[in-house]
Amino acid sequence: MPETFSMNGGDGPHSYTKNSCYQREVVDAAKDMIIGAIAEKLDIENPTLNCSNPIRIADLGCSVGPNTFIAMQNIIEAVEHKYQSLQLQNPPRSSPEFQVFFNDHASNDFNTLFISLPPSGGRQYFAAGVPGSFHGRLFPRATLHIAHSSYALHWLSMVPEEVVDRNSPAWNKGKVHYTGNETVLEAYSAQYKRDMEVFLSARAQEIVSGGLLLLLIPGCHDGVLPSETGTSMLFGLFGSCLMDMAKMGMISEEKVDSFNLPLYHTSPHELKESIETNGYFNIERMDFFTPHTPPDSPDCEILALHLRAAIEGLITEHFGTDQIIEELFERYAKKMEENLFVFDVKYRKEFVIFACLKRKNN
Amino acid sequence: MPETFSMNGGDGPHSYTKNSCYQREVVDAAKDMIIGAIAEKLDIENPTLNCSNPIRIADLGCSVGPNTFIAMQNIIEAVEHKYQSLQLQNPPRSSPEFQVFFNDHASNDFNTLFISLPPSGGRQYFAAGVPGSFHGRLFPRATLHIAHSSYALHWLSMVPEEVVDRNSPAWNKGKVHYTGNETVLEAYSAQYKRDMEVFLSARAQEIVSGGLLLLLIPGCHDGVLPSETGTSMLFGLFGSCLMDMAKMGMISEEKVDSFNLPLYHTSPHELKESIETNGYFNIERMDFFTPHTPPDSPDCEILALHLRAAIEGLITEHFGTDQIIEELFERYAKKMEENLFVFDVKYRKEFVIFACLKRKNN
Repeated sequence: MPETFSMNGGDGPHSYTKNSCYQREVVDAAKDMIIGAIAEKLDIENPTLNCSNPIRIADLGCSVGPNTFIAMQNIIEAVEHKYQSLQLQNPPRSSPEFQVFFNDHASNDFNTLFISLPPSGGRQYFAAGVPGSFHGRLFPRATLHIAHSSYALHWLSMVPEEVVDRNSPAWNKGKVHYTGNETVLEAYSAQYKRDMEVFLSARAQEIVSGGLLLLLIPGCHDGVLPSETGTSMLFGLFGSCLMDMAKMGMISEEKVDSFNLPLYHTSPHELKESIETNGYFNIERMDFFTPHTPPDSPDCEILALHLRAAIEGLITEHFGTDQIIEELFERYAKKMEENLFVFDVKYRKEFVIFACLKRKNN
Repeated sequence: MPETFSMNGGDGPHSYTKNSCYQREVVDAAKDMIIGAIAEKLDIENPTLNCSNPIRIADLGCSVGPNTFIAMQNIIEAVEHKYQSLQLQNPPRSSPEFQVFFNDHASNDFNTLFISLPPSGGRQYFAAGVPGSFHGRLFPRATLHIAHSSYALHWLSMVPEEVVDRNSPAWNKGKVHYTGNETVLEAYSAQYKRDMEVFLSARAQEIVSGGLLLLLIPGCHDGVLPSETGTSMLFGLFGSCLMDMAKMGMISEEKVDSFNLPLYHTSPHELKESIETNGYFNIERMDFFTPHTPPDSPDCEILALHLRAAIEGLITEHFGTDQIIEELFERYAKKMEENLFVFDVKYRKEFVIFACLKRKNN
């Protein structure tokens, strides 16, 4: 995966800003869980957190607003609430200052992010942008008190090498995801585990002892096969649109063979295992929720726009042209319309995993 | 001054990146002074600096690279050198980590800045961008160890109100700067003093006791009148180009009357006075230098491109169109060609002021 892969920038009709209402539902649905986790689990009497000033918070994989601003505001309110509740018991202490670090790939549209920040008068924090992949170090040692990542950790750092290797049993010819192929699924799962190990080890360096790592990750129930989930079926439909276009000579079939979505939906069991293998964090909480009940007849055009906002850059780079974008996502919307059964309630086996991790003492 | 005013972004032919070689000369010429100031004046045995980890450095008004990267690298090398020299005397201590904050207006092209950062492997610091005006708070209390600002503090936070007020004796009709008008000059000087007070008070909150504020500011000798300096004459020529275009009906004369450059060249005496009035910093060093000897026949086109990279956004916003830009800066280059006497050595009364300030103990 090159560093250049990011959600669509700007605030036009195909921007992430205008096509991220589902991600917004995750932020809203998670609000009470985040508040609860901070109230219960952020031990501000802990020596490394006690009187920490400023409190430093990072949003990892923030993309462009507004969702990240809402998420950061929720966290700050929760921390302030916690400080205020302590003041009732103890001699008053002055509320800390906050510094919020918005992180995403260097190719993320930080210009739009910065211009759309809440105005400094009405904002309780000092803002900074941090460019770079969260699959690596981003911050100095022991300088973060709370790190948050919402709907970002299902992006892999790269497509697993085996799935684009013609000589590998995991070669994923004619498909763009692991739907229905166990060897391909295993390659994705192994990549996910490597990525999580790198992610957690980097955060372990950056987060102070007692600091929190709050994760919101799309996942699916333990033991569920990808072929049984609506999301995987949708990726199957998307792949078939690319194959249709290849057959019509609009793109090369070889290019479709070598294109794969660097996305992986983990399970609670697998996530727990990754965290325990890494060993630097305690799992304080792990909950599962579905942010919204999908309507019986989904708006396929909006769904297509959401995927487009996320992967247009990836497609353009892989196929070396942006001329296919309009047609591809129109076809995708149409194909969903023709296959509405994939939205059936029996295939809704995915949810969001909320995990509250605490950095162990060194 | 709106927040939208920034140097030209991107890396095209009119970008700041491609038209800032004069500013680069300042960075290069200041290198030894910066190294010397850090070697002598950064007291890393001071309790608030001792074992500080990470060392936090900010570049205030950084614009787009590459100059800011070079300046930050110079500072980091100087700090590392200082640590290494101490290791020879004392039991070895591990070198600190560095976090560098690149600051400019929210409208600055941070996307280009982030993409052109030295790759993380070859870079000794964690990078962050901080959007916002340095005429106000940008960082939490006492979190910076070294703040640096090169060729940025001559930009005022706004054009002084009196100079665009028809009823004021300082109304600057038909001109764009304070050349030759004492009342206008006084209004600019008063604005500069207000801005410096706000700047220094904000930095006093953000910089730790014993921390350094390193300033490189274009200025002119004490007692020199603007009408005696080449730079002021150049602004006079630039203003006359706008007036010529107004007389030809290409822009409104009223718009020219209300346009003024938010630029001010201070003097060592005035700068000292501002710092002493503010009272939070000791002046550890103040030096003056001319970064380069201008050639006898300057390249007027390059000079025009430099001004364009800096104020194109300002002009476009004020006149409500970018249609006049090409013509305006072509005329300006031509007018300089016709008035080469302004480059005469006798009008070279400007230099760069280097000031090393240290935050007093609270």
